[in-house]
Amino acid sequence: MREVVVLGVGMTKFGRSEHSMKEMFSMAALEALEESGLESKDLQALFIGNVLGGFEEGQMNIAPFLADEIGMRHGAPATRYEGACASATVAIRHAALMVGSGVYDLVMAGGAERTTIMGTPLATKTFAMGSHSEYERFTGITFPGIFAMVAHQYCAKYGIALADLKMSMARTAVKNHHNGTLNPLAHFKKEITVETVLNGPMIADPLQLFDCCPFSDGAAAIVLADAAKFKNKVRTPVYVAGTGQGSAGSTYRQKDLTRMAAREAAVRQAYDQAGIGPSDVDVCELHDCFTIAEVVALEMLGFAEFGQGPAAVDRGDTSLTGRIPINPSGGLKAKGHPIGATGAAQAYEIVKQLRGECGERQVNGAKIGLVDTLGGDFSTVCSLVLRRD
Amino acid sequence: MREVVVLGVGMTKFGRSEHSMKEMFSMAALEALEESGLESKDLQALFIGNVLGGFEEGQMNIAPFLADEIGMRHGAPATRYEGACASATVAIRHAALMVGSGVYDLVMAGGAERTTIMGTPLATKTFAMGSHSEYERFTGITFPGIFAMVAHQYCAKYGIALADLKMSMARTAVKNHHNGTLNPLAHFKKEITVETVLNGPMIADPLQLFDCCPFSDGAAAIVLADAAKFKNKVRTPVYVAGTGQGSAGSTYRQKDLTRMAAREAAVRQAYDQAGIGPSDVDVCELHDCFTIAEVVALEMLGFAEFGQGPAAVDRGDTSLTGRIPINPSGGLKAKGHPIGATGAAQAYEIVKQLRGECGERQVNGAKIGLVDTLGGDFSTVCSLVLRRD
Repeated sequence: MREVVVLGVGMTKFGRSEHSMKEMFSMAALEALEESGLESKDLQALFIGNVLGGFEEGQMNIAPFLADEIGMRHGAPATRYEGACASATVAIRHAALMVGSGVYDLVMAGGAERTTIMGTPLATKTFAMGSHSEYERFTGITFPGIFAMVAHQYCAKYGIALADLKMSMARTAVKNHHNGTLNPLAHFKKEITVETVLNGPMIADPLQLFDCCPFSDGAAAIVLADAAKFKNKVRTPVYVAGTGQGSAGSTYRQKDLTRMAAREAAVRQAYDQAGIGPSDVDVCELHDCFTIAEVVALEMLGFAEFGQGPAAVDRGDTSLTGRIPINPSGGLKAKGHPIGATGAAQAYEIVKQLRGECGERQVNGAKIGLVDTLGGDFSTVCSLVLRRD
Repeated sequence: MREVVVLGVGMTKFGRSEHSMKEMFSMAALEALEESGLESKDLQALFIGNVLGGFEEGQMNIAPFLADEIGMRHGAPATRYEGACASATVAIRHAALMVGSGVYDLVMAGGAERTTIMGTPLATKTFAMGSHSEYERFTGITFPGIFAMVAHQYCAKYGIALADLKMSMARTAVKNHHNGTLNPLAHFKKEITVETVLNGPMIADPLQLFDCCPFSDGAAAIVLADAAKFKNKVRTPVYVAGTGQGSAGSTYRQKDLTRMAAREAAVRQAYDQAGIGPSDVDVCELHDCFTIAEVVALEMLGFAEFGQGPAAVDRGDTSLTGRIPINPSGGLKAKGHPIGATGAAQAYEIVKQLRGECGERQVNGAKIGLVDTLGGDFSTVCSLVLRRD
């Protein structure tokens, strides 16, 4: 594999947008191109994550239209990837593999999604199409219910009181909301307290409103290139050091909701390819669609022993100045969650962190970062290890 | 690039099916595995084309569920590709690139789609989401209208009478229906005449009913492997000798509807990679969503001079015993068109042709075959060159 370097990144503000998917992606893409000192005509291929374009704007086959919108030359290939929330990370991984293996020298990857146009009820319903349509959906369960089961199983498995777990979950929300206040592009920029979480409306027991991430609109993009040819174009080169992707059956096929085969496989591949272990990671953006998701992810990614995720949270390990800062961007919880764009925004944050460009939310001296994105109910997971010299 | 060999192929009957998308794909996949002498646990990754799963069965994120359904091990990556009708060809191309570049040694690619469950009106409407949602759909145009414009522009550009062009289009339908009668898996197995076409109901002037392919249900799968390690497993090895993919803006961005930048770029890449030209191709499955689409494709793929497509049809060049047999399977016109599975079915036919397993529709001595799949209105095109020793 050749070394793959990040030439530029771009991202829109997350939240509720008046812009179309194509407009949002263009804004992110042109920012990434400007950072790269390139024009869109230089790009050899485009790799795009998008999930619900058909329901949101009646737009399937979005990749060539995004390529055209940003001015790529006609004839260059543009490909859409869809793996629920992990779509953009899957797109970035495949872009990195294509550059790494010598198929292309210079490509763009990213994601775009416009969820708020549907309203939360329709968004929740279409979003649940990431679960198994024949064997699960007839039960009426949607993602809040699935992650509520994770919390209950966690308590049962480790003999932890639900009230204690809920405190760690609430602290996770408080931490991510705090980080969001430091991120100009975040959907929510409001400090909350543990009481805000514990007094919120119940969504799916034990998940309350502030345990849940929002639906957001947004887009993000990243330019990847063969390092041998292009690394001199950037002041602080960041490299894609490893990638991994794993799949598994839907919830009903999982023996233990606190351990996800797809995630453990994906992150192991990424660590192995990068030649690192979890203790080498300085900063991580992980998939906190619900607060419990962040707690269990800490364990599966190797940042806490199994059963010790809540203790790691309670010790402050995951804060900006902690042992392993998690979701400095605010995470899905506060930065927001435009489904098919989320992975690209996680990569954006890690690139900015490794370059030292994150201002008040900067993790000091970060050299190695991890992106972890979960799609569907534990069925598609994708990981990226990024590093700087 | 390493040499990539086809170990096995599988395909369901096309038409109206009582089976779910997952069941159809499983049937095709298990047939491909059986031909390969492999078990699903041997597969390192799955690459899947599917377009309208969200509308058909409320199923997004289908790749991991298909992987699970066929018994792949949890942890192996499964990825969905969506580029309208070209989805499965794009999936196969990426699978071949991943094997060719050494990322994987043994993978499955394919596609599955269930269109008849929606009925033709909803299928036509959702299918039109492959066109540009902001700049085209408000005009009310759907694919029959777009390809009708191709026919009119063709006549205007080359000074051909519409009645003459319609004769060549009708002969194309008659030829593909004839081929379909020889294909046990085809949706339509009924001979028609030029009169059947010319007396059919008008759909979008000048396209009449028998100028249009049907919506079908179906699935197809292909197992690809590193030839150095696996070619001894097959009696008649077929290789992926070249691939290409191109994108372009939607119809409103095309200067000449009879020339498609994305297709010309895609097929040039595939020919170049294979080190061949159009005169080396012995058999071709191309995207005859409408009869006019086959006529203009002949020219863009290099099988006829520009302006000479109708003459090539009229001479019988494209028949099973002609100079360049086109769509021996019956094509989209008679074999059927399960959107996201179509490219995989085209590859299935070419593999069977190169192996000499096509019975009455066999193209004698075929050694090099081309797959050409068109997605959206000229915006995503993917090409594969297959060959045997």
